[in-house]
Amino acid sequence: MNDFQHQTLSIINVGLRSFAENISSVGGAVEHVDWRPPANGDREIGVKLAELINHPAVEAANQVAFDRYAAANPVLVGVGVAARDLPDMEGKTILHAGPPVAWEEMCGPMKGAIIGAAIYEGWADNPEAAEKLAADGAIRFDSCHHHNAVGPMAGIVSPSMPVWIVNNEEHGNRAFCTLNEGLGKVLRFGANSADIIERLKWMETSLAPTLAAALKASGPIEMKPLIAQALHMGDEVHNRNTAGSSLLIKKLVIGALESDASQRDIRDMVAFVAGNDHFFLNISMPCCKAMLDAAHGVKGSSMVTAMARNGVHFGVRVSGLPDRWFTVPAPVVDGLYFPGYSIADAAADLGDSAITETAGLGGFAMAASPAITQFVGGSPSDALIQSRDMRNITIGRNSQFTLPALDFAATAAGIDVRKVVDTGILPVVNTGIAHKEAGIGQIGAGITSAPLDVFIQTIEPLHASVAAAS
Amino acid sequence: MNDFQHQTLSIINVGLRSFAENISSVGGAVEHVDWRPPANGDREIGVKLAELINHPAVEAANQVAFDRYAAANPVLVGVGVAARDLPDMEGKTILHAGPPVAWEEMCGPMKGAIIGAAIYEGWADNPEAAEKLAADGAIRFDSCHHHNAVGPMAGIVSPSMPVWIVNNEEHGNRAFCTLNEGLGKVLRFGANSADIIERLKWMETSLAPTLAAALKASGPIEMKPLIAQALHMGDEVHNRNTAGSSLLIKKLVIGALESDASQRDIRDMVAFVAGNDHFFLNISMPCCKAMLDAAHGVKGSSMVTAMARNGVHFGVRVSGLPDRWFTVPAPVVDGLYFPGYSIADAAADLGDSAITETAGLGGFAMAASPAITQFVGGSPSDALIQSRDMRNITIGRNSQFTLPALDFAATAAGIDVRKVVDTGILPVVNTGIAHKEAGIGQIGAGITSAPLDVFIQTIEPLHASVAAAS
Repeated sequence: MNDFQHQTLSIINVGLRSFAENISSVGGAVEHVDWRPPANGDREIGVKLAELINHPAVEAANQVAFDRYAAANPVLVGVGVAARDLPDMEGKTILHAGPPVAWEEMCGPMKGAIIGAAIYEGWADNPEAAEKLAADGAIRFDSCHHHNAVGPMAGIVSPSMPVWIVNNEEHGNRAFCTLNEGLGKVLRFGANSADIIERLKWMETSLAPTLAAALKASGPIEMKPLIAQALHMGDEVHNRNTAGSSLLIKKLVIGALESDASQRDIRDMVAFVAGNDHFFLNISMPCCKAMLDAAHGVKGSSMVTAMARNGVHFGVRVSGLPDRWFTVPAPVVDGLYFPGYSIADAAADLGDSAITETAGLGGFAMAASPAITQFVGGSPSDALIQSRDMRNITIGRNSQFTLPALDFAATAAGIDVRKVVDTGILPVVNTGIAHKEAGIGQIGAGITSAPLDVFIQTIEPLHASVAAAS
Repeated sequence: MNDFQHQTLSIINVGLRSFAENISSVGGAVEHVDWRPPANGDREIGVKLAELINHPAVEAANQVAFDRYAAANPVLVGVGVAARDLPDMEGKTILHAGPPVAWEEMCGPMKGAIIGAAIYEGWADNPEAAEKLAADGAIRFDSCHHHNAVGPMAGIVSPSMPVWIVNNEEHGNRAFCTLNEGLGKVLRFGANSADIIERLKWMETSLAPTLAAALKASGPIEMKPLIAQALHMGDEVHNRNTAGSSLLIKKLVIGALESDASQRDIRDMVAFVAGNDHFFLNISMPCCKAMLDAAHGVKGSSMVTAMARNGVHFGVRVSGLPDRWFTVPAPVVDGLYFPGYSIADAAADLGDSAITETAGLGGFAMAASPAITQFVGGSPSDALIQSRDMRNITIGRNSQFTLPALDFAATAAGIDVRKVVDTGILPVVNTGIAHKEAGIGQIGAGITSAPLDVFIQTIEPLHASVAAAS
């Protein structure tokens, strides 16, 4: 009793933060543990979750799915054209980011980008005509993900657009993505003015053939070593791609100079790519898609194989439930806004680029990229915490992608819906922010997280599928 | 007394570590402070040092010197030829790294590089003839630093060699450095076989003219923004120059493609530079030299304006004592050795590249470069400590060079000899390690520190110069 009187009381508070605040407000020392009951306290889900945790069939399936993801070997093999190379792109088809969404429901920037794409394709002469075409049902819309593609922000892919082709040489699957247009007023943020259409035409007729010739001369480029090196040079390959873009251009320019591309076209290609530090994003994304598609469709696996937003819904795909999307309303991101803009101007979360986080990069690899915090907010110390936190909700770590600032620890990868719902720790996502109206473009960037509810939705169907199998 | 009995005893030990070890060996808690008496306990120097510390004349002079360093604006303006562009390069002159040293005294790799340079210049047909020429006094040797130049490792500059030209646009001074040859068996590490001479000839006749044409077309390149960006991409611009090299090539290749250089020469240039992640070292070095030379010769200033090693002596130049070198024996570096080599094979510390540390980069900016630790040793956490430690011995911080992992703190810069001697904290230097024999090349890399004794030497003359002025 004497000892107890003379010792300083150390208190650990678990759960409601207000209990801890009461103690610290009167000068007491208290350590708060941010804990919530699993599944937001939903008893029925909680019971099913408990049955799924450590379930041998799920564990085995996750190992298979994770190993496929980890063994994938994404290789940049060429530059193609959407209509020719993507599956099922007949007629007036336009692909968009995120889960499927009807024209009427779409957010402003997605509509703006579609209007731009219709003009670019020559289906309409002006925005009004393009809008009418879309509203009349003359255009078929679908998810990029249903066509082995991914697209940043609005994620618009129309038939004439050039696309990067990434082969997963380990499993034979392919992934596609359009070429990155740069920052600011660009189609993917919903801008669609004449200069943007003109740039898209130049990308189709000059940039893409030059890149294709360069890549043909250089030969296929293995992307995992390049991504790994970019992580050691301050990229997280989602919102920071400065190093990746530089490393890629070194390879491409040698190829271009050995090809029959004209010196003028090579110069224009280099100037465009060198002036666009986000150029590599549209390669890192299909690489992640190629790795994760290999892990998709493993019966019983609780591994997330895609997170994607269409500006209205935040959608998630799970390996063991391959034919469906789980969706909740997309959040609006409380990020860093460019001068003159605020959260009131922002579209809801948008784009397939969260495929990078799904693959253990982007927000999951924030520790590799202290400089990204100047763009998306937070501090370098926060970045370390975020990368460490993600270890609690993943199946494993990707030893090929290491984080220098965490003493070269492997990045956490393979989000497990069970762990997300059990811990309440949410996958962190870096993201650009589009204006909510069509035609304006990017107005900011920020750090957000995937909503808990979308993961909670997966538990019952996963439980049912595992129960049905056993 | 009751309170005291129940409290855990916390002990701080200052000075001799063995006292602390006695306590911790019996389970006691002790915090050791690594303190030594100033000037290694030399009373006479200590008294003079005490008079110099906070001396108004020294403080004022240091402010002038530091401001000149900080205001300097190094700009890459062209590629020249040593014989034409460097001052006082007549006849059979060869410049070398570090303070002046006679042929007889020189270390193996420096002799090896000189033999190579004599063959490259056509002064001799074979190593024996070259050696005889040098021994006979037919070649005039001098420090790079005496000709506004710097050179990594052996630092050999002979008349026909192409050189980068860096102008300090703020103060009008210039600095020069040869082009980087790559890693492994290269002249600067003392190798001198036929393939090395052939590469030097190719650099003179193809690479340099192409780079010159590219730079002429692109226009002068301001280097501080580029170095700042490289620091945000994991370089410390001494032993890691991956990002700087990539950023530079992006600029040069556009210029080259706009120049009348042939597509073949451009291709060869890009392939060479893209294959050599150290290419940027030979630009970061003259940039640092240009910044520091602006700060040299300020009466009364205790700021270090050069640290340089010739493989025999470690030399230091001080702003307020402009006409002399302070030297001590160069240490051998206990670093990371390539397979098959050990410290027994190593030449003593060599090269002008510690000019980067003198300018607040290199080892001083280790925090920017966690990945460098894989090359020179230590851990990313050590790197943070090193960069922070250097604040104790510098006049200020360079707000243009920031370190992401330290929440974008400005790098410590402007080494103050008084602070080094007072605290015993030694400037940290990253370095490559050459084989001690001529003709072999690099065998490792490591982290070392400038020897205390060389700084102690500066105190008396500095004291005398300040006393004479007041």
